[in-house]
Amino acid sequence: MRCRRCGEKAEIYLKRHNTAFCSSCFQVYYSEQVKRNIKREKMFKPNDRILVVVSGGKDSMALWHILLKLGYNVTGMYINLGICGYSDRSQEVVERYSQANNAPVIIKNIEKEYGFSIPALAREIRRSTCSLCGTIKRYLFNKVALDGGFDAVATGHNLDDEAATLLGNVLSWQEGYLARQSPVLPSTHPKLVKKVKPLYTLTERENLAYVLFNGIEFIHEECPHALGASSILYKEILNKLEDESPGTKQRFLTNFYKKGKKFFEKYSEPVKLNECKICGQVTTAEICSFCRLRQMAEKKKVDSMPQEGEDF
Amino acid sequence: MRCRRCGEKAEIYLKRHNTAFCSSCFQVYYSEQVKRNIKREKMFKPNDRILVVVSGGKDSMALWHILLKLGYNVTGMYINLGICGYSDRSQEVVERYSQANNAPVIIKNIEKEYGFSIPALAREIRRSTCSLCGTIKRYLFNKVALDGGFDAVATGHNLDDEAATLLGNVLSWQEGYLARQSPVLPSTHPKLVKKVKPLYTLTERENLAYVLFNGIEFIHEECPHALGASSILYKEILNKLEDESPGTKQRFLTNFYKKGKKFFEKYSEPVKLNECKICGQVTTAEICSFCRLRQMAEKKKVDSMPQEGEDF
Repeated sequence: MRCRRCGEKAEIYLKRHNTAFCSSCFQVYYSEQVKRNIKREKMFKPNDRILVVVSGGKDSMALWHILLKLGYNVTGMYINLGICGYSDRSQEVVERYSQANNAPVIIKNIEKEYGFSIPALAREIRRSTCSLCGTIKRYLFNKVALDGGFDAVATGHNLDDEAATLLGNVLSWQEGYLARQSPVLPSTHPKLVKKVKPLYTLTERENLAYVLFNGIEFIHEECPHALGASSILYKEILNKLEDESPGTKQRFLTNFYKKGKKFFEKYSEPVKLNECKICGQVTTAEICSFCRLRQMAEKKKVDSMPQEGEDF
Repeated sequence: MRCRRCGEKAEIYLKRHNTAFCSSCFQVYYSEQVKRNIKREKMFKPNDRILVVVSGGKDSMALWHILLKLGYNVTGMYINLGICGYSDRSQEVVERYSQANNAPVIIKNIEKEYGFSIPALAREIRRSTCSLCGTIKRYLFNKVALDGGFDAVATGHNLDDEAATLLGNVLSWQEGYLARQSPVLPSTHPKLVKKVKPLYTLTERENLAYVLFNGIEFIHEECPHALGASSILYKEILNKLEDESPGTKQRFLTNFYKKGKKFFEKYSEPVKLNECKICGQVTTAEICSFCRLRQMAEKKKVDSMPQEGEDF
């Protein structure tokens, strides 16, 4: 098979586009996709300061690399969540990339800064590690971006992630989530930093190819807590549909943005945002989930689980 | 395992309800589900005349049997579509049931009445047999019901069928289909007979159990043209989700009716219905799809495929 652009020997075949590329032309395709997503969705402007959330995995490492390559003003941010072994190994990957590429990075360590580890707290208060992890990450990304004067927080969510989230929301008809799912979550409050997903049209496999072709180090292992997550089942299912009919995943997601989403948006209730009485960050409750988690971590009480309200 | 109602030895376990029944209590459950669906969705009244579409398969045979058992004024309707072997074998099943139960049935034969067989016409005009079959069945059910003064047409669509259709419509965000998918399609034109699906909350497996427990003969083979249909893939996928999380299929469908559907309904364009210039039946075009198919069958022309417009 030959590269569609240059006619050289192809190194990757993209079935859904019925196209093959050599490694260097693939990078042109990849780069064009990212540039087009940023422009079309008005994610950020050339001089904006962008905080890139990096986990050490292929997707976020690819995002960090491509945004630096495209010349954006980018700072990485890594959160060590205290997940045994996995967190330290992924932090090392992030630090090595930062040093080798002279790329600024902000490292946060939950255990050192807040005195609790996520898996331990999750066990204590009988919540899933993944839900705590989500709460804490959303809180810290926004806080660091706000305190540091960043214009946007960029995450490495890919097409597979976004389509799996959409499938989960559709299976239970979560109208609020359906109304809000987007490649760009605008700042709807002065204390809420815009969130963007520049890789939302690129698959996991394409991000993997991008890091491999560029020799970017990344952590291969999945978070041990992700095993058995419903998102993995949804990804498997979407892969099955994709095998039978290439392009299904992208059509499902992009047709949702083009056609489906508007139905939910027009009827969704606007979300009222408050400032947390303790930390001042944005929440729909009186006290944000993060502060409630901290209170619980201090008191080790199980009787007031922070489930109502939602932080942004 | 014991029957939930009577404590006798259970013969069927319904995982999504975490309940087991013996064969006679299962029939009480089955019957209650059908009665509840008819009442809640206002499908028909006790003295209405109902035309039940029967194919000879487990679902429609179960529907015919339960509606007769519940004392409704029911007439079966079978269409012989000229699908080699399969059509004749299923017609025999329907006729035997009719005779044994003294149940009135109307038999239509496409080849004898209209001079063409569906598979032959499909080949001639390069359309799929399944799409022609759907067009012809919808046309004839409505025509026979209208001419015979029936109040409703009842079909054996089950939970698996409805959830698979919904998944297909969601994957491509077909807003028109999403707005109209319903256990009851009301009569929106004087020449359009109401369509109802009394088994929409019962699974394929439950319909199978019902016909087996009642010793009802049915045709085991699937229509040979259904092989490879996307609905089969969607059913497989929903079964996988159901295995992982029992109740997913029903939640997906019922939450759509409770929560999701209203979003599409409110924004969907009302469909303008005309009467076909040739036969007078309801269509969105000038000439209905069925008459266009007949014209094509007569002329054997391929250049005007009936795709625009839709009949109800």
